Amino acid sequence: MGATRGLFITLEGVEGAGKTTAMDTIASHVRDLAMVPLVTREPGGTEVGESIRRILLDHADDAMCPETEALLMFAARAEHINKVILPALERGECVLCDRFTDATYAYQGAARALGYERIGALEQWVQGELRPDLTLVLDLPVSVGRGRAGERSAPDRFEQEQDTFFEQVRQSYLERAAADPGRMKVVDASQDPDSVARALRHILDHWLVAGN
Amino acid sequence: MGATRGLFITLEGVEGAGKTTAMDTIASHVRDLAMVPLVTREPGGTEVGESIRRILLDHADDAMCPETEALLMFAARAEHINKVILPALERGECVLCDRFTDATYAYQGAARALGYERIGALEQWVQGELRPDLTLVLDLPVSVGRGRAGERSAPDRFEQEQDTFFEQVRQSYLERAAADPGRMKVVDASQDPDSVARALRHILDHWLVAGN
Repeated sequence: MGATRGLFITLEGVEGAGKTTAMDTIASHVRDLAMVPLVTREPGGTEVGESIRRILLDHADDAMCPETEALLMFAARAEHINKVILPALERGECVLCDRFTDATYAYQGAARALGYERIGALEQWVQGELRPDLTLVLDLPVSVGRGRAGERSAPDRFEQEQDTFFEQVRQSYLERAAADPGRMKVVDASQDPDSVARALRHILDHWLVAGN
Repeated sequence: MGATRGLFITLEGVEGAGKTTAMDTIASHVRDLAMVPLVTREPGGTEVGESIRRILLDHADDAMCPETEALLMFAARAEHINKVILPALERGECVLCDRFTDATYAYQGAARALGYERIGALEQWVQGELRPDLTLVLDLPVSVGRGRAGERSAPDRFEQEQDTFFEQVRQSYLERAAADPGRMKVVDASQDPDSVARALRHILDHWLVAGN
């Protein structure tokens, strides 16, 4: 991919962190900056990917082994990258993806204890050199996020996990962001929605000026 | 796994090679030899695996990229190994599996052109040291196999492929069998059913006497 490719921005955070609202803010701001946003999500984003998503989130499969879970995530991702993400980047668009491989590191690598090295092997196999240009991590205490998410629909297979599971997910996001501060930016999602939106716009402006 | 584990035998071949009949012969002979057979298949063999199988064989997804296909195969395999194959081997049973990783080398590695090296990386990731003890390859000319298979139900996503695809699958099985003759045994499946059954029993007897 040459210098004319678009931008690849991912959004991460546990349930209840406010990803949906944040995605609207980011897409709107990207449009204001005269770029074309393409909003998508993982697992999913393609016909095959949404079928895989249903297997992953279905309650009936609650004893699925962690290796299967990680391979299904990357199967959906391979399809998503080839069918959606790379074509959009080649058109020069700004891809905004609700969860990507950082989520696999956090959920399957840390919380399911597969380890970062095994996730990294699949990342390399599937993505080659493709990495997000910028990753926004919405961070808040697990109890606050779960309280918000609990007000919504019935919990899926992941949402049924215990607080310790989501605590490991949160810590993984934070430790990986600390190790890669150029790409991963943490936003305090426990603030009021206006403050979160302001923080997101501020990061985008500074990051774009810095000449990502 | 210690010395008391069971045996892991896989059966390979293109559609129409007579795998169903061959599996009955093998299971029956294993029983005659006072072992407990466990007959299973890939992709599938578990609840999650059968859901993955439906995604893989569904016509609607005919443009699925080869990487997705390989990752879905190994996702189903990881579940199958952990839930079915390893527990049966630990109980000392004789696992008889209709297709396994040799099929992924042939279909996705060769015919879909992902290459053996990339399949080998996933094999190692998913299986660790687990390999079949014995693999029986039912071989016959592609045109003969397709003629037989065509008499059955509507073709699935793989069966819709052209002859050149299945020719690559066949050649992959043959070349890998030639490179690993201790484990992979080729049976001429163009013979009449009785001769195929006799050949299968002969291989099993000799292989067991040789003290696999």
